[in-house]
Amino acid sequence: MNKNKESFIYGFHSALEAIDSGKPIEKIFFRKGLTSELFHTLFQQVREQGIPYQFVPSQKLDRITGKNHQGVIAYIAPIDFQNIDDVLPGLYEKGINPFIIILDGVTDVRNFGAVARTAECAGIDAILVPAKNSARINQDAIKTSAGALLKIPVCRTFDLADSVKYLKNSGIQLVAVTEKSKTNYDQLDYSKPTALLMGSEDTGIADKLLQLSNFTAKIPLKGEIESLNVSVAAGIMMFEVVKHRNTE
Amino acid sequence: MNKNKESFIYGFHSALEAIDSGKPIEKIFFRKGLTSELFHTLFQQVREQGIPYQFVPSQKLDRITGKNHQGVIAYIAPIDFQNIDDVLPGLYEKGINPFIIILDGVTDVRNFGAVARTAECAGIDAILVPAKNSARINQDAIKTSAGALLKIPVCRTFDLADSVKYLKNSGIQLVAVTEKSKTNYDQLDYSKPTALLMGSEDTGIADKLLQLSNFTAKIPLKGEIESLNVSVAAGIMMFEVVKHRNTE
Repeated sequence: MNKNKESFIYGFHSALEAIDSGKPIEKIFFRKGLTSELFHTLFQQVREQGIPYQFVPSQKLDRITGKNHQGVIAYIAPIDFQNIDDVLPGLYEKGINPFIIILDGVTDVRNFGAVARTAECAGIDAILVPAKNSARINQDAIKTSAGALLKIPVCRTFDLADSVKYLKNSGIQLVAVTEKSKTNYDQLDYSKPTALLMGSEDTGIADKLLQLSNFTAKIPLKGEIESLNVSVAAGIMMFEVVKHRNTE
Repeated sequence: MNKNKESFIYGFHSALEAIDSGKPIEKIFFRKGLTSELFHTLFQQVREQGIPYQFVPSQKLDRITGKNHQGVIAYIAPIDFQNIDDVLPGLYEKGINPFIIILDGVTDVRNFGAVARTAECAGIDAILVPAKNSARINQDAIKTSAGALLKIPVCRTFDLADSVKYLKNSGIQLVAVTEKSKTNYDQLDYSKPTALLMGSEDTGIADKLLQLSNFTAKIPLKGEIESLNVSVAAGIMMFEVVKHRNTE
């Protein structure tokens, strides 16, 4: 597949049909000011499915296609997104000790792909990301992931805090990785069901999510640079968890 | 500095003067078929200094500059390269327990920059690379390194095996990181003076260097993908060393 050739569909009926048939939608653009009944039907579906959407000027849509888009263009994702609420029970049923990574606002496609590659190598069971403010999962991401994004469930959620609460209520300990922590990352016990929470390169982890965490952990830095690249930090954390589980 | 604007000089006398005055040269292009005495004088200097060089067709040089290049174009590096033979004694004199990373054939500029960033964060004392078959150290590399390449000594050598022997003779244990190892990376003792040897993304570590290693180490992978990204693997290894030294 040509990585520059993006796959999209347009028009209300095509978009509704794609959603109905379970096609993975990466994101959907609506023309600003849409008010028709068909729009509201589609918009409700989009929100229910947790599909990222954006209202844009008509010109932006016209630049994507010269065809009659009716104010709706949807990009088909190269992977199937899943719901964490569906994935987690399946892990428990299979007797797996869940190991999840949550990426809060990692928007760089290469960093995202690199985290996914390491996640596959570390035996991660699922990647959880917010529907908005996350890297695009396109052919570049898949390439950087060395195909990992086609192997690991990627779960998308409209309300990350809500999904994190769900994980905690389901017996998962939430470990937020942040330089502000007072606890060294190797002082925690990761043998329990665990979700690692990594923040964005710029703004770190949202306060709301930090407050939900069971533990925070920091990787101690020895130099002047104030942070590791997120894909490296995630790699160090994931293999620390692997280490705790090898002794099981 | 505009990252697309590369800094170069041309002509025999300019190149000789740059080398004499200690300007860091990233690499030098010679026109194929040069035979003059001036060429041999310069070429000898280039080899002695361990500057990467390449013989190219005249047209390639003409595309770089329309000026009278005399068959010689030298790119100025944005960092000062150092010699490991100079750096290591200085570390011992300062009472430092040396911690070095060797990158054998890491040619991707972003991977190289990412390793350097982590190296700074892990308190690495020097990065050792071969003069040939290594990533260009340009503005992109410096940016990806978050400036680390301006802080850590980068040592360049014409003969990596020879430099590795020098390190070993100077009391450094050489740990080669390779998936072919039978030893888990967390089973070794890194509290001694240590050099980590990481191989290229494609071909791994050269056999000659593997044979020189005191130890090999592998990061155990749980999935189907056969290798970690080199910058992630280097990060996991470097922070394993940090862990062993925090208890000193």
